[in-house]
Amino acid sequence: MPTVTMIGGGQLARMTHQAAIALGQCLRVLAAGPDDPAAQVSADVVLGSHDDLDDLRRAAAGAVALTFDHEGVPLAHLQALEADGVSVLPPSKALHFAQDKQAMRVRLSELGLPVPDFADLAGDLGLARGRLIDFGDRHDWSIVLKAVRGGYDGRGVWILDDRDAALAVFDEQFDAGVDLIAEQKVAMRRELSAMIARSPFGQGAAWPVVETIQRKGQCAVVLAPAPDLDPDLAAAAQEMALRLARELGVVGVMAMELFETTEGTLLVNELAMRPHNSGHWTMDGAVTSQFEQHLRAVCDYPLGDTAPSAPLTVMANILGAPDAPSMSMDERLHHLMARMPDAKVHLYGKGERADRKIGHVNIVGARDDDLATVRERAERAAHWMSHAVWTDGWEGH
Amino acid sequence: MPTVTMIGGGQLARMTHQAAIALGQCLRVLAAGPDDPAAQVSADVVLGSHDDLDDLRRAAAGAVALTFDHEGVPLAHLQALEADGVSVLPPSKALHFAQDKQAMRVRLSELGLPVPDFADLAGDLGLARGRLIDFGDRHDWSIVLKAVRGGYDGRGVWILDDRDAALAVFDEQFDAGVDLIAEQKVAMRRELSAMIARSPFGQGAAWPVVETIQRKGQCAVVLAPAPDLDPDLAAAAQEMALRLARELGVVGVMAMELFETTEGTLLVNELAMRPHNSGHWTMDGAVTSQFEQHLRAVCDYPLGDTAPSAPLTVMANILGAPDAPSMSMDERLHHLMARMPDAKVHLYGKGERADRKIGHVNIVGARDDDLATVRERAERAAHWMSHAVWTDGWEGH
Repeated sequence: MPTVTMIGGGQLARMTHQAAIALGQCLRVLAAGPDDPAAQVSADVVLGSHDDLDDLRRAAAGAVALTFDHEGVPLAHLQALEADGVSVLPPSKALHFAQDKQAMRVRLSELGLPVPDFADLAGDLGLARGRLIDFGDRHDWSIVLKAVRGGYDGRGVWILDDRDAALAVFDEQFDAGVDLIAEQKVAMRRELSAMIARSPFGQGAAWPVVETIQRKGQCAVVLAPAPDLDPDLAAAAQEMALRLARELGVVGVMAMELFETTEGTLLVNELAMRPHNSGHWTMDGAVTSQFEQHLRAVCDYPLGDTAPSAPLTVMANILGAPDAPSMSMDERLHHLMARMPDAKVHLYGKGERADRKIGHVNIVGARDDDLATVRERAERAAHWMSHAVWTDGWEGH
Repeated sequence: MPTVTMIGGGQLARMTHQAAIALGQCLRVLAAGPDDPAAQVSADVVLGSHDDLDDLRRAAAGAVALTFDHEGVPLAHLQALEADGVSVLPPSKALHFAQDKQAMRVRLSELGLPVPDFADLAGDLGLARGRLIDFGDRHDWSIVLKAVRGGYDGRGVWILDDRDAALAVFDEQFDAGVDLIAEQKVAMRRELSAMIARSPFGQGAAWPVVETIQRKGQCAVVLAPAPDLDPDLAAAAQEMALRLARELGVVGVMAMELFETTEGTLLVNELAMRPHNSGHWTMDGAVTSQFEQHLRAVCDYPLGDTAPSAPLTVMANILGAPDAPSMSMDERLHHLMARMPDAKVHLYGKGERADRKIGHVNIVGARDDDLATVRERAERAAHWMSHAVWTDGWEGH
C-alpha cells in the first residue's frame, strides 16, 4: 500500500495516522522531535525541520504524496520539491494562498467570492501607514489587523477599535518585519466553516456546514451541522468552497471559514488546506472522517461519504489550563469516562500549557437529543478535562 | 498516560493501537518481526517471541498492563510474570480457560452453563480411545474432535460423521502428541456471539448479541445485532457471558461464542478473552469499539457505552484468495471506494494467502435499510477486495 508523508508531527498528523491504519498504510511524519504528537504513535518518523529542504527531501523519498499538518513550509522549498518530481498535495500554487492572507484576499476578490473589505499594508512605511489611515477612517477604526503569514489560533490577529491602538500595532509589527493586512470588522451573526475535499481526479465532496464558536481567537466549540442555517446559504457556502478548491487546484481537505453577517450574507474569512479543527466532529459524527478523506484525496482514491452519522454532533476542544489541575490527565479521563460513557475523547499526547489545544471531545447526539443538551455535555466534558472542575458544580467526580 | 503492552503483533494489536491513539497512548507490541501488522504502525515495538520469558519481560517493563492478541503465551510464563508483579490481564487463572478447551468445558459445566456433551480424550491411549468409542456410539458418531490447545480459525477442529474417520483423526493426533476433546455435533439454528467487557473494578458491559456466519471453520460474516433473536435469549447470552467473566476473573473484552439450537436453547461453544472477529463491527457500528473497550478495561478505566450507533451493521472478512487477483490491493481498494463510498474498510497490512484474514469491511445500515441489502453489500465488498470479482456480475470496476 502507498506511503504518504505528512510534514509536521502535530495532532493533525497524529489523527491522520490513526486513519491511515485502516487503509493499510502507515503515515510517515516529518517531526521536530520524538515527543511530537504524531511521532509518539507512528512507526515511520523522520526527524527534522520543515524549514530544511534536505529534511523535506528525506521525508518525501519513496512517498506517493507529500502533505501537511500546518502552513509553515517555505514556498520555495515546496517548489524545489515539485521540481524534484515530488507529488506535493495541495500543490504549492494552491498552498500559497493558505500561507499568504494578502494573496488569498486578492485571489478571492478576483474570483468574485465575497470577502470583507481589506487593505494591503506591506511595502514602504509611509505609503502603508497612509493606506492604514485611509482604511481605518473609512471603517470608523473598527478593523482587524492580521499578519500576512504565520498566524494561527489567535496569534497574529489584532482586533481593534481605535486609531491609536491600530497605529501602535502597525508600527510595532513593521519594526519587527511582519507584513500586515487590514480588514473591516464584520457585523456578524456567527462564524461558519465549510469543510470540503477535492482529489487530483477532480472529485469534490462537502460535509455539512458547521457553526464554530471562537474564544480568545481560536476555535473552541463546533456545532455540526450549523443549527437553523438557511439551506440555501449552506449550499452556497459548500459551492463556494468547492469552486475555490477547483479554481486553485487544491488537493486534500480544505476548510473555508466564513462569517454569517447580521444581514444574513456570507463573507469568506480564512482558508486552511489541511485537516482542520472545524472538522474534528467528523471522527465520530460522519461516515468518513476528515482524516481518512484527506488520505483518500492525496492518494487519488475516490472520496468517502460525507453524510453525518447522527442528527447532530458537538465538538469541544480540551485546552491547557493556566494552572496545573488538581489531578493528572489520566485521573481526569477516568472520571470523565465514569460520568459520560458515551463521550468520545481524543487526546494528542501534548504537554499542558495555557490555552494550548491538547485534545477534544465529541458528543454524538441521539435522535431525541436537543442541541442545548448535547452542547452543554460536550463543553462540560472538555472543561473537566482542561481544569478538573465540573461546570455544573457536581463534586462527586 | 499509561503504557499498555499487547503480546502479539497481529491485526488485533494493530486495531488496538489505533484505538490507543485517541486515549493519548501508544500501544507497545511484542511482535515477531517488523512486518507484523501492528509493528508496521506502532512507534513502540519490542521484537521477540511470545514463547520467550525474557522477551515477555522486556515487553512488560514499565507497562501498566500486559495483554494479548492471541492465546499462545505459555501459562507458566504468565505465572512467572505475575510473580514478577506484572499486571497480566486477563490474569493467567482466567486465560487458562481460553487456552485449554478441556479445562474450559469442565469449568463451564461446574458453573452450570449449558455446553454440548463432551469427553476428555487425553491421557493413556487405550483408555482415551475407549472413551472416544463410547462417546461416538452415544452420538451416532456425529461428533467434533478438537485440539485442546492452540486451534483457531478452523485449525485443530475436525467435524466428523463416521467411526473410522474419527478414529483415524484420533490416532494421527495422538501420535503427534496433540491432546483432543470430543464434542457432540449440535443440531443448531445458527451461531451467536456475546461480546462483553469486564474491568478489574468489576464493571461489566455487553454489546448486543450478534449472529456469526462461519465458512471453512472460520468467521466470515457478522450480523449486528443478531436478526430476530428472542430478547430473552439475547439477555440470557449476555448474562451468561458477564457471569462467566466474573466467575473466572476475566479482565478485558471477551467473546462467548454460542450455538442457538434447533430447539431454541443456547449452548456455549468457545471463549476468547481478547478482541475478537465477532466484535469488529463495533469499530463503525457502536459508540465504543471493542478495541477502545479492551484498553479501558485493562487500564481499569470506566467502560464505554456499548450501544449500537445504527440499527444494523454487517461485517464481512476480507480473505486472501487462492490465486493472485488480477489487480493489486491498492487498485481493488480504489474501485471499492468508487462503488461504495460508505464502505468502511479495515486492512491489516498482511500478505495475501488463501483464506487468511487480511482485512474486513463494515457496512453500517441506515434507518430504512433492510438486512438483506446491507449484508449483500458487505459480502460483495469483501469478496471484491479478496478476489477482484464483483459477486453481482458488474464489470464496470
